[in-house]
Amino acid sequence: MAELIEALAGRRARRAFDPRAVPAETQELLWRAVSVAPSHGNVQSTRLLVAESAAVRATLLAALSEGNRNWAPAAPMLVALGSMPDHEHADSYGEERALWSFHAGIAAGNLMAQATALGLIAHPMAGFDEAGVREAFGAPGELRILVVFAIGFPGPAESLPEDLQKRDQREQRRQPLDRLVATDRWGEQHSQPARDPSRSRRDGGKLGR
Amino acid sequence: MAELIEALAGRRARRAFDPRAVPAETQELLWRAVSVAPSHGNVQSTRLLVAESAAVRATLLAALSEGNRNWAPAAPMLVALGSMPDHEHADSYGEERALWSFHAGIAAGNLMAQATALGLIAHPMAGFDEAGVREAFGAPGELRILVVFAIGFPGPAESLPEDLQKRDQREQRRQPLDRLVATDRWGEQHSQPARDPSRSRRDGGKLGR
Repeated sequence: MAELIEALAGRRARRAFDPRAVPAETQELLWRAVSVAPSHGNVQSTRLLVAESAAVRATLLAALSEGNRNWAPAAPMLVALGSMPDHEHADSYGEERALWSFHAGIAAGNLMAQATALGLIAHPMAGFDEAGVREAFGAPGELRILVVFAIGFPGPAESLPEDLQKRDQREQRRQPLDRLVATDRWGEQHSQPARDPSRSRRDGGKLGR
Repeated sequence: MAELIEALAGRRARRAFDPRAVPAETQELLWRAVSVAPSHGNVQSTRLLVAESAAVRATLLAALSEGNRNWAPAAPMLVALGSMPDHEHADSYGEERALWSFHAGIAAGNLMAQATALGLIAHPMAGFDEAGVREAFGAPGELRILVVFAIGFPGPAESLPEDLQKRDQREQRRQPLDRLVATDRWGEQHSQPARDPSRSRRDGGKLGR
């Protein structure tokens, strides 16, 4: 039987980076993975903001949460992914379903899958000050930032402080499939949260664990 | 140089299905692709609703837009993908960024990538009555439906009416990468919509074109 493809199964939000730069043609494959992501009405509302200069990089790093600033500076690439809600089609789907955010999610997933296939880490961070990220790039208020990626090739675990080494080695915990999938009929188990929603993750702020 | 992986580059939202059923172990790979999708704080708020019985299938089909009802009944599988906003962590990220929708987007992208790798079509539809979809599965009002997938192996183009054959053959149009990617600085071109946002796609309602 076919297996879960490596681009999905092999993805981990690791934090230990090798300092070598990501070649331009490899970067372009990440952008193209975002480019081919589908969107309702083909609105293509997703945008990528790449910090290249030292000045922009420093401003972007300063906009990250403290937890992320502990390790993200070691990543050779920092890329924000945002969405333009005004570009969504003016029908009720877009407003009611926050399709600007949904579309950005498909695009972010494509970027992570392509990165994994290339042997890269693309670590998604949710912990950042949105206005600060926009400011780093001079982006307008209409742009909503969904995630900032720390991207690079994997480096030695020992480059991290011990607590982060442990977090990087934790296995990926997922709820059982029968809590995720409802066949024909919704059940009580599908209403159960995988984790306690009252717990705030404001500071650590990352996707994936 | 490495190429854009086939799971992303080969995806097309086609409409011509082969009637043969999707084997259970193949279905499970789609569910696992959704299961491994990352979420902020690992909330895993995405849910899949699979129409298996003829009765649920008929109710779900009746909740689709007229445009989608022209071809979706030929798909051997119909699967709704939804999200539980209440399961998101109680911090401002979730509310402000509609992470429930973003997380569902990552999951939907994973499902499409895995489907493509298995030689399946997973055609995402945005044109449906959300309350009607929930009702088909007896799902609670808290569940937000983002997309309904028509899934199956590809069939002969001639199984479609001529107008849909033409739509299926259209190439994937995307804006140039320099409109999508801003390096260091946001520019005027990044604020340009790829398509006119005033155009409503209410009826045709599909993702991807």
